[in-house]
Amino acid sequence: MSGKEIEKLTKIISKLPSLGTRSSRRIVLQLLKKRETLFLPLIEALQEVAANVKTCEICGNYDTVSPCSICASEKRENNLLCVVQDVADLWAMERVSFFKGKYHVLGGVLSALDGIAPEDLNIESLLCRIKKDDIKEVILALPATVDGQITSHYLVSRLKDMDVKVTTLAQGIPMGAELDYMDEGTLQLALNSRKLL
Amino acid sequence: MSGKEIEKLTKIISKLPSLGTRSSRRIVLQLLKKRETLFLPLIEALQEVAANVKTCEICGNYDTVSPCSICASEKRENNLLCVVQDVADLWAMERVSFFKGKYHVLGGVLSALDGIAPEDLNIESLLCRIKKDDIKEVILALPATVDGQITSHYLVSRLKDMDVKVTTLAQGIPMGAELDYMDEGTLQLALNSRKLL
Repeated sequence: MSGKEIEKLTKIISKLPSLGTRSSRRIVLQLLKKRETLFLPLIEALQEVAANVKTCEICGNYDTVSPCSICASEKRENNLLCVVQDVADLWAMERVSFFKGKYHVLGGVLSALDGIAPEDLNIESLLCRIKKDDIKEVILALPATVDGQITSHYLVSRLKDMDVKVTTLAQGIPMGAELDYMDEGTLQLALNSRKLL
Repeated sequence: MSGKEIEKLTKIISKLPSLGTRSSRRIVLQLLKKRETLFLPLIEALQEVAANVKTCEICGNYDTVSPCSICASEKRENNLLCVVQDVADLWAMERVSFFKGKYHVLGGVLSALDGIAPEDLNIESLLCRIKKDDIKEVILALPATVDGQITSHYLVSRLKDMDVKVTTLAQGIPMGAELDYMDEGTLQLALNSRKLL
């Protein structure tokens, strides 16, 4: 391959999630081929995001303004808070456009293996917010993994003495799933939490 | 999702080869998280390539100089030319670092379906180059597809009256392959072109 600039770019692109050296090379070639329609617009869009997007000081979302448009919105319920692990999860919730409260991004979950302790997460700011904004309900929408569940338990213990309802997302069989393909844990859980029709 | 800049960037990234909306979103989040170590270096590398890399006027390769470093190299054989479909194929040949001649990028192969005719490819410049540089051998390293083979045949007919040897890459069983997994066409071809040991 020729040109150290091209090699450097290929190396950086291959560090992005879901990309390796081969797909990175294909991307660089595609960019060079479509200079006007793809390459220059990409650089411009990246620069705009790098220059304008910041972390919301209240919830941790990414937006061009801080407080972000969700935190600043007057159409959203002020006393309903959904706690998520990451901005990706916040975006996933927003795509459903069903939830009308506000969010709080933890920035991770507790993990003994990765050495993530409560002080590494945005927990203090969550507690402050609950007091200050008079939050009535906190929905814990953390991942259904062991670490996610441990974090949920920890948060429940921290919120116990506060005057706030703490709920979590329902667990069970996902929509459209075949029972045959579900793991035993999910089946057992769905059976335990069965509902009266 | 919040921020029209983020949405615009996600849309552009999802147009890159091997990426869709979901992986594109993951990439944008990763960039925002690793602003100093990934986002800004990526923008810088993209700008450098956009500003400096051009198409070589002789062979069609991408490089920061034109003629490219391969065309300008004095260590390479001047009268051995390898014809490839695309710069990606040129890079693939270069990774082997076995071929010591020069290249000519056709920019595609003939295709009745996609309406690609001889005048859409860098064929005239190839013929000029063969005459001008006194090329002794042209290696056709075009894809082993129907369109690639038709293009090879066409080039052979165009080069027939010129004083140049025309060869093509050997076809057969790739290294390390199990016969069991080879298609019938390849097996038949490998059998027809069998070699005396």
